[in-house]
Amino acid sequence: VSGSLLGPGPEFDRIRAIASGLGSRAAGLGDDCALLEIAGTTLALSTDASVEDVHFRRAWLSLEEIGWRATAASLSDLAAAAAQPIGILAALTMPGSEPESSFASIMAGAGEAVASVGGVVLGGDLSRGASISLTITSIGRAPRPLRRRGARPGDGLWVTGELGGARAALMAWKVARTPDPGARVRFARPEPRIEMAGWLAKAGATAMMDLSDGLASDARHLAAASQVALRIDLDRLPCHPSVPGEAQVVGEAPGSFAAQGGEDYELLVTLPAAFDRKPDRGLALTRVGSVEEGEPGRVIMERNGVPVTLTGYDHFA
Amino acid sequence: VSGSLLGPGPEFDRIRAIASGLGSRAAGLGDDCALLEIAGTTLALSTDASVEDVHFRRAWLSLEEIGWRATAASLSDLAAAAAQPIGILAALTMPGSEPESSFASIMAGAGEAVASVGGVVLGGDLSRGASISLTITSIGRAPRPLRRRGARPGDGLWVTGELGGARAALMAWKVARTPDPGARVRFARPEPRIEMAGWLAKAGATAMMDLSDGLASDARHLAAASQVALRIDLDRLPCHPSVPGEAQVVGEAPGSFAAQGGEDYELLVTLPAAFDRKPDRGLALTRVGSVEEGEPGRVIMERNGVPVTLTGYDHFA
Repeated sequence: VSGSLLGPGPEFDRIRAIASGLGSRAAGLGDDCALLEIAGTTLALSTDASVEDVHFRRAWLSLEEIGWRATAASLSDLAAAAAQPIGILAALTMPGSEPESSFASIMAGAGEAVASVGGVVLGGDLSRGASISLTITSIGRAPRPLRRRGARPGDGLWVTGELGGARAALMAWKVARTPDPGARVRFARPEPRIEMAGWLAKAGATAMMDLSDGLASDARHLAAASQVALRIDLDRLPCHPSVPGEAQVVGEAPGSFAAQGGEDYELLVTLPAAFDRKPDRGLALTRVGSVEEGEPGRVIMERNGVPVTLTGYDHFA
Repeated sequence: VSGSLLGPGPEFDRIRAIASGLGSRAAGLGDDCALLEIAGTTLALSTDASVEDVHFRRAWLSLEEIGWRATAASLSDLAAAAAQPIGILAALTMPGSEPESSFASIMAGAGEAVASVGGVVLGGDLSRGASISLTITSIGRAPRPLRRRGARPGDGLWVTGELGGARAALMAWKVARTPDPGARVRFARPEPRIEMAGWLAKAGATAMMDLSDGLASDARHLAAASQVALRIDLDRLPCHPSVPGEAQVVGEAPGSFAAQGGEDYELLVTLPAAFDRKPDRGLALTRVGSVEEGEPGRVIMERNGVPVTLTGYDHFA
């Protein structure tokens, strides 16, 4: 792993320290997936932990939704690599106070999520612990693997779907309001963009990642990995319908609110400048900016043509 | 998954309930590894969580040992399938009170463990949580995959290495004594039996599993999966040198103590009756019993030819 290709931020400082300590004992840390060549087939693997009171609160989600959401978050990493899921392994820890049936309820949600994109539950590990923790490892085939690196100056920068919905739900929960039902679904049942990712790879995408920490934060990682700068027009961001209302509550412009919203699990993708196709299915694909030569890792966000500074996404810590 | 091929016990009741809920959304749950065919290559995958205050206590282990032990436990599942490791993915959760450098210390131990058997760290996920939790997913190639099923009446039943050392350390810690140094190593730095497993597969092994919950408990799962009965002579068990002393403290015979000791991560393997080879390397291989026709899943333990009843291993809960 080359430290210079990792973006800024404490999570990436940790990865840098780990990679430096591991030396040749690590291979290619820092992207959404590990890519592995097996007999001419490229496999993509990713592991993702969902921890109670860090990534979700128990009161917000049903057990099935906890399982779905953790699984979708892991599968979203496969989407980022344009991989087709084979299956998942699930390591599930539950407090001793939870009834035995809760294991099956969470795993039913996990199974539903992986089945929705053509995969199965391959295995797992069950144990008791102080809180609910679900670590999902996804494995898939990546015939046209994409990475965070590969964006070229001149490419267009695009996002799938709508942004800010999960954050809108979170903002409501944080002040004990009931979230907008549509926003709640975006938080509780995010959809891994597997099909769209395959379509984008075939359409000539040059780099891709999924948006888990929010566009303002994640874009810097794609820019660093690709050794380019990115320019984003916040006025062009496709906002979830719940965003204008929640943005007003906190006094932010909708685009700024959406750019700082994490856990939408949409895709950020770069495509050749001439790209102007429309996906067949209902999911939106919106051009939000462009790739430029410039300081590697720099992201310039503009509103009405004026640069603005945004911070990243803090989950709900 | 066929419920009848799973052994008794609450963990397997959970797996049965999950498999029944998942239906066609699950594939082959309940063995040490998931086996996956990719372009003519069989891959083995396993995921394993190590949770503070469930699988270990912080005061007993260094950070590097926490990383080594969690990784070795996961790699031991690959050994059970006679797979050769490619690498691991690590999902690591640490309390906010831990310094940043602790992430790298734990991962250094994980990296050392996987490097000791020829693999690398492929990727991971880092987050903050209430306690230390490390979920390791291992992936490897299994040219001659073994499973828990496959043992045939008449086969001999064998174990690798020595049993009871990890339990001896645990018993000392539980009463605030300093464990025997050799026993401590067995708990803190178990060695996945990868090389021996490959040798056993080539030598004609018919079924295999690793001993994580203790022979008395685990043997029932091999017996259930293979639809056979097992007869074990407790007097023949190869005991770790620390076992006689600790067994005396709790008033158990050494063989009984060792049979109820979990987390040794040795292999339990069935081999044709005529097998009498010695492994080239230093690791012991001891015949401890035989496979019989009889009630599927039944395990008869004998001392001086007299059947005895033993319970399983409770970790330290």
